Amino acid sequence: MEVHEVDFEPVGRRGQCRKDESLLACAHHHFIGINSVCGGQGKCRSCKVQVLSGDVSGPTSSEREAFSTQELENGWRLACQTYIAGDGKVNMPPESMSAVQRIQVEGLEGKVEVQPPVQAHELTVSAPSMTDQRADIDRLLDALNAQYNLHCDRFDVDVMRSLSPRLRSWKWRCQVSVRRNEVVALGSWPSRHLGLAIDLGTTKIAGYLVDLSDGRTLAAHGATNPQIGYGDDIISRINRAIRSPEKGVKLQRVVVDTISKMAADLCAEAGADTDEIVEAVVVGNTAMHHLFLGLPVKQLALSPYVPAVSGALDVKARDLGMQIAPGAYVHLLPNIAGFVGADHVAMLLAVDAGQVDASTIALDIGTNTEVSLITDRNITSVSCASGPAFEGYHIIQGMRASSGAIERVEITADGIRYQTIDNAPPIGICGSGALDVMAQLYLLGVIDDSGRMMKEHPRVRLWGKQQEFVLVGDGDNSGEPSVVFTQGDIRELQLAKSAIRTGIQVLIESNGCSEDEISQVIIAGAFGTYIDVSSAIAIGMLPPIPLDRFRQVGNAAGTGARMALLSGRKRDESNTIASHTGYIELAGAPGFKRTFVEASYLGRYRMRNGKREAID
Amino acid sequence: MEVHEVDFEPVGRRGQCRKDESLLACAHHHFIGINSVCGGQGKCRSCKVQVLSGDVSGPTSSEREAFSTQELENGWRLACQTYIAGDGKVNMPPESMSAVQRIQVEGLEGKVEVQPPVQAHELTVSAPSMTDQRADIDRLLDALNAQYNLHCDRFDVDVMRSLSPRLRSWKWRCQVSVRRNEVVALGSWPSRHLGLAIDLGTTKIAGYLVDLSDGRTLAAHGATNPQIGYGDDIISRINRAIRSPEKGVKLQRVVVDTISKMAADLCAEAGADTDEIVEAVVVGNTAMHHLFLGLPVKQLALSPYVPAVSGALDVKARDLGMQIAPGAYVHLLPNIAGFVGADHVAMLLAVDAGQVDASTIALDIGTNTEVSLITDRNITSVSCASGPAFEGYHIIQGMRASSGAIERVEITADGIRYQTIDNAPPIGICGSGALDVMAQLYLLGVIDDSGRMMKEHPRVRLWGKQQEFVLVGDGDNSGEPSVVFTQGDIRELQLAKSAIRTGIQVLIESNGCSEDEISQVIIAGAFGTYIDVSSAIAIGMLPPIPLDRFRQVGNAAGTGARMALLSGRKRDESNTIASHTGYIELAGAPGFKRTFVEASYLGRYRMRNGKREAID
Repeated sequence: MEVHEVDFEPVGRRGQCRKDESLLACAHHHFIGINSVCGGQGKCRSCKVQVLSGDVSGPTSSEREAFSTQELENGWRLACQTYIAGDGKVNMPPESMSAVQRIQVEGLEGKVEVQPPVQAHELTVSAPSMTDQRADIDRLLDALNAQYNLHCDRFDVDVMRSLSPRLRSWKWRCQVSVRRNEVVALGSWPSRHLGLAIDLGTTKIAGYLVDLSDGRTLAAHGATNPQIGYGDDIISRINRAIRSPEKGVKLQRVVVDTISKMAADLCAEAGADTDEIVEAVVVGNTAMHHLFLGLPVKQLALSPYVPAVSGALDVKARDLGMQIAPGAYVHLLPNIAGFVGADHVAMLLAVDAGQVDASTIALDIGTNTEVSLITDRNITSVSCASGPAFEGYHIIQGMRASSGAIERVEITADGIRYQTIDNAPPIGICGSGALDVMAQLYLLGVIDDSGRMMKEHPRVRLWGKQQEFVLVGDGDNSGEPSVVFTQGDIRELQLAKSAIRTGIQVLIESNGCSEDEISQVIIAGAFGTYIDVSSAIAIGMLPPIPLDRFRQVGNAAGTGARMALLSGRKRDESNTIASHTGYIELAGAPGFKRTFVEASYLGRYRMRNGKREAID
Repeated sequence: MEVHEVDFEPVGRRGQCRKDESLLACAHHHFIGINSVCGGQGKCRSCKVQVLSGDVSGPTSSEREAFSTQELENGWRLACQTYIAGDGKVNMPPESMSAVQRIQVEGLEGKVEVQPPVQAHELTVSAPSMTDQRADIDRLLDALNAQYNLHCDRFDVDVMRSLSPRLRSWKWRCQVSVRRNEVVALGSWPSRHLGLAIDLGTTKIAGYLVDLSDGRTLAAHGATNPQIGYGDDIISRINRAIRSPEKGVKLQRVVVDTISKMAADLCAEAGADTDEIVEAVVVGNTAMHHLFLGLPVKQLALSPYVPAVSGALDVKARDLGMQIAPGAYVHLLPNIAGFVGADHVAMLLAVDAGQVDASTIALDIGTNTEVSLITDRNITSVSCASGPAFEGYHIIQGMRASSGAIERVEITADGIRYQTIDNAPPIGICGSGALDVMAQLYLLGVIDDSGRMMKEHPRVRLWGKQQEFVLVGDGDNSGEPSVVFTQGDIRELQLAKSAIRTGIQVLIESNGCSEDEISQVIIAGAFGTYIDVSSAIAIGMLPPIPLDRFRQVGNAAGTGARMALLSGRKRDESNTIASHTGYIELAGAPGFKRTFVEASYLGRYRMRNGKREAID
């Protein structure tokens, strides 16, 4: 049987592919998760991929329907319809991936001029002699400033400590990394000139190794935030840190250690050394930002909820215990407020918030959902306590997006179709699956617009004191159901989606505009990228704006972090964004409570002055 | 019996003094070492003290002879002639002290305008509210910059970590320490505003706790450099560090730990907290400077002997492991060359080298002796490898200046008189004692000008293969002599004194001037302050310049460090001094070898073009 080698990007896995198996089958054979809602029938388009190189079969009729001619020319295909005819390379966009720990390490690639604050210079230094007894640092700085017309006069103390023997062993030729007027790293010539961008999420950490000389991302990894072991959500971690200072220190250390390990793994993948990482940028929400720096968090958790620091910071990596070049700085983008952090600023930077079309909404859905309304005049942000339901918490059979989680659901009169991560036997429901179930049940009339579950459907039954819908299993009380979706789950999801819709609504109303005027809705982050926007509109979580105005952009915070790593100008821009972004305390907004109650209803509706106006 | 309390400064010891005992007897009774060459007869003037307060007996005829009216008015007295009539306080100048481990913590007090680079500001910050959610740091910086018209925009990360809870516990009132545009420390209001000056010697460490608000020295301590355990001299320590990087780290750590402990002790004495020390200045020779910073030293020890760094440095205390305020900086004065370090710069600063009369020689005698010639045009320095003989090493019965060491000697036809430290039974000879013995024996003709010991004296005998002079003991071969001074000792001391005289000579000749034109000779440091200058001239170690041109100024390096602590302008001045001080590599100077041989001769002589010209 004819067999070819296929590289799957961006995960960087290679597998052998038989001539008679589709790309989808090949990927699953090698445990590379690609979505497949329709089961490989060419109908759902959830398995779309981009063939970057190699011979493949011609497009089928389903693909001609799914893609424009231009898209087909660019290599876009459905993995279930495509057969390999030679060695090749395939790119999987985030929305097609269903890997375990779906951590998005690719996102909106912003165009950025590569002009990092740390510059690398090749240098040959004259050796000392009895007639030239200048100190090693003096001779290096003299040569550096003369050759590159700089005014460098500071030297990191750790770099100082290794300078003399290294210069001699390198025969006085070296690579000097200069940040403003300070030498922060020294390497043999040539060395790599690398940066590390970290998106530090409450649950997940994404890390990118970036080549500072050309802007390329050399490797990208994801990891679970180890602070999970100290509390699933931010509040419980903050409480830990408040109760015991040692716990606070521990919370700082475990996350830094994980980042250090990630840096080492990224470097191993790129064949580099962690000492070649001469700058890092870290973004996270305000609480993660504070815990990462070892800052106190008590004042964040108590009214009036103020951060210890909000401006951008440059901290020596060693002062945080981070294992990269000893003299490197970690740059932290500014926070906006106690609950709108540097990760949101990074996201706004990535979507070019200073330049977007008038009236754009940008949101990053998570346990805490930050939403900004960008107009041609200003940016206003709110923070919505959407809770952990979308992460699978507080849902009876909820789970994180890992193997066996139901992530896509279609319920029709004919029956139920679902897709699990890794195509494993279903063991629970993750956030995007729950959103789908709720929308589908609402559209079928099994749930009414107040969220109440009807009894008429054959798969609805009473269990204990509450109604539940049997998603997987027999449905009669005799069998053993595998996965159910309960009335209580609906209530949890209603709280979550109502918080988000309320945030959007408060932003729109306080800016005196209407939903129709929103020309673009940018949804960032892992969960936001996997959700079915139609489902989100169907349950009233998002306003009924035409679908073509939505953009699901993946990990924009990570992209923003990379942009800030690569460009001093982008850092300036992030400061401008942060200082020009107003913050509305949601609970204090006029009509907040009424809006929140109204927004808990399901269905497609506009809102005006805190009232629903049904459409369709 | 009438008894009074007497405070002895600067050692800070208090003792009870009986009406019928002299101040000298009282001091010795309390183990406070005051010199007493003549045995309390009012003849030698070596016990001079200054009565700062309290009733004392009137001056005796010996004192009227010893002091001018003005001096008597200022409280200067001979301790052996003075009796206490009430509680009082007495200051012992360095030259009168004979304490164990004579470490000088007082020195030439330079006049300096108190304008330290770290300023303390009282501040009341407005508390946050739901309508003012600025970050804690922002509200502090806003208030600080507005109230004091500053442009402070940096915050030490460790200060950041404690800011939020402390501001709240202090009810938003605090003391902010600002260094340039950075907040380096935070305290409750009012806190002390303290600095630490350290003179880091090869053998001894002197530390001063200084009040940065008024310039007062609050406490001063001395300690043995613990690196002694890793080698008595610099070269053996450098070799340790070269052979094993761990040893280098250890050498750094032990000295930093000793300084931290000294800081804690000084604070305890002054009733302060180490967190109130917001700045430190450290001076030492280039090797000590490097070992203190953890810099490599191999290139210092090998031709062409270059330092890793020579410019002034500001390093965070925590990067060195020093236990003072976590955000404080340690300022290191610049080095001049591989063997002329920041301690010499501090000494030049203290003697106001930029302003002294034309043609001054300033020297600090030690294992390595740095000498500068200051003219109205420039400063030139040399480093003389004088060796450890003056520290008591390589001398058969040599010892450091500690209890039982013979430190003053007078040999006449009538016999031998000597003084030991603490008046303890003699067990050896320290540097100043050895210098005296050599001078006295030369003046008596027991040693000729080539350094050869004559056989004619009854106390000279042959022991094994070499001649020796029996200083303490019977002198005939039947008895058991206690302390001897050998032909070999003379040779060691000749090497040492020849190195110093050669250095002085090379400086004078290379500047085209003569010994007669030297208007001032400043001798700094512990050993230099205790020596008898006449003895030093008698053996040809110092040129035959009139005695009234010599000044023995004590620990000028420590004083320079304190000046740099108190004044940004003095730091600028130290940079100017370092950059304007030329360095002559002694071994490369024209006629070096001939000069060295000539300078090994004993006697009072001028030198011209490397030749002796006997005088008297």
